[in-house]
Amino acid sequence: MNPAERLAELGLALPMAAAGLGAYVPWSRSGRIVTTSGQFPWSDGSLAYRGRLGDTVSVEEGYQAARLCALNAIAQLDDACGGDLSRVARVLRLEGSLLCVPDFVDHADVLNGASELMRDVFGVAGLHSRAVTGVASMPLGSPVLLYVQAEIDIEGSESP
Amino acid sequence: MNPAERLAELGLALPMAAAGLGAYVPWSRSGRIVTTSGQFPWSDGSLAYRGRLGDTVSVEEGYQAARLCALNAIAQLDDACGGDLSRVARVLRLEGSLLCVPDFVDHADVLNGASELMRDVFGVAGLHSRAVTGVASMPLGSPVLLYVQAEIDIEGSESP
Amino acid sequence: MNPAERLAELGLALPMAAAGLGAYVPWSRSGRIVTTSGQFPWSDGSLAYRGRLGDTVSVEEGYQAARLCALNAIAQLDDACGGDLSRVARVLRLEGSLLCVPDFVDHADVLNGASELMRDVFGVAGLHSRAVTGVASMPLGSPVLLYVQAEIDIEGSESP
Repeated sequence: MNPAERLAELGLALPMAAAGLGAYVPWSRSGRIVTTSGQFPWSDGSLAYRGRLGDTVSVEEGYQAARLCALNAIAQLDDACGGDLSRVARVLRLEGSLLCVPDFVDHADVLNGASELMRDVFGVAGLHSRAVTGVASMPLGSPVLLYVQAEIDIEGSESP
Repeated sequence: MNPAERLAELGLALPMAAAGLGAYVPWSRSGRIVTTSGQFPWSDGSLAYRGRLGDTVSVEEGYQAARLCALNAIAQLDDACGGDLSRVARVLRLEGSLLCVPDFVDHADVLNGASELMRDVFGVAGLHSRAVTGVASMPLGSPVLLYVQAEIDIEGSESP
Repeated sequence: MNPAERLAELGLALPMAAAGLGAYVPWSRSGRIVTTSGQFPWSDGSLAYRGRLGDTVSVEEGYQAARLCALNAIAQLDDACGGDLSRVARVLRLEGSLLCVPDFVDHADVLNGASELMRDVFGVAGLHSRAVTGVASMPLGSPVLLYVQAEIDIEGSESP
């Protein structure tokens, strides 16, 4: 199965690739490397989760928010690949910002929501390194913001 | 117009490329990719802004601080390019750390100060992806710290 | 002297390359560039430092924690290089997250613990750019979390 078929099997439809909140573009590419801007937990055009982990947002809700961010990031990769997700050669890295109370320590469990979707959609090519940041404030008051870096196949390119 | 001419038209002079605060270098390069260390809002050798966004620093002051950080980052790119900014092929990414009160949500408006300067100086080549982090503490108590990644032309190199 | 000999001269033994806390891998590679996931101050399988800089953790303890994170990161690079650290061509970048009280400003002094170990082990090839983030919360309550990006020699590869 290719990534689009795996998404379908998971019952997931790709959302529209969202525009940024400011004077920037949703992703940039250098050679084979695509890096996204911050991906929010958008669902049907509205933010599905708001608030602080460890306060009004539970770890399970955070997991779902991270998964939704990852789905939005896949939509950006799809856009960067001209609509052909099978050109994603490797998801290299996920970076997640989490809005938490100061004594929160379950960052890894939350961000697994994004990591596990990448594994489920891209298989071995979805294995990635990861960074996590417990932030003090967040645009839109979102509990999760996700950045993805991926290596993609480009026409006529060879692996560097 | 080239980037140096655009800077002149904006009435901006490049500052000295600032040294880091510790045991590191202001930028590193791998192949065509240059990445800067954190750029502060230095002006004539002193920090032009200090304090927390949403408290003692307004969104408009934050915008100006971000713009000043970007000017300092351009000085680093100029250094990385041996004094020839026309070798900047693409500004790939801006990453901004903002020192804010916990309920601050206007991160995008602040960081636009950096993004819009990149657009004004580099034109289409200044379009970039972006990351923003609402930090809890900051070196020097600066409200903004900016990192820039750019693709530059190197002698005898081909696009990877 | 090569990096392994410098480590021995410093009296340092490489720890086991630690697994991640979640559904991710400890490092990923694209071409010649290796990027690690977050490295904690592990020592003999337990976290050597816990708590917040400026509160229960001093700057000197933070320096030692950062140095220990860097040693764990070198173990990851060693793994990525198949056990031959002399294949590390350049340490490109260190990114450090520090758990601090809100008015903490000595981030650079703390992160120098990591930077100076890289210089001592890799010499000129250990010179790097750097990013620092004062976070509001941290996995495991660690005072320091470190990410390293390095350029390595790969079989049959030429500098891009």
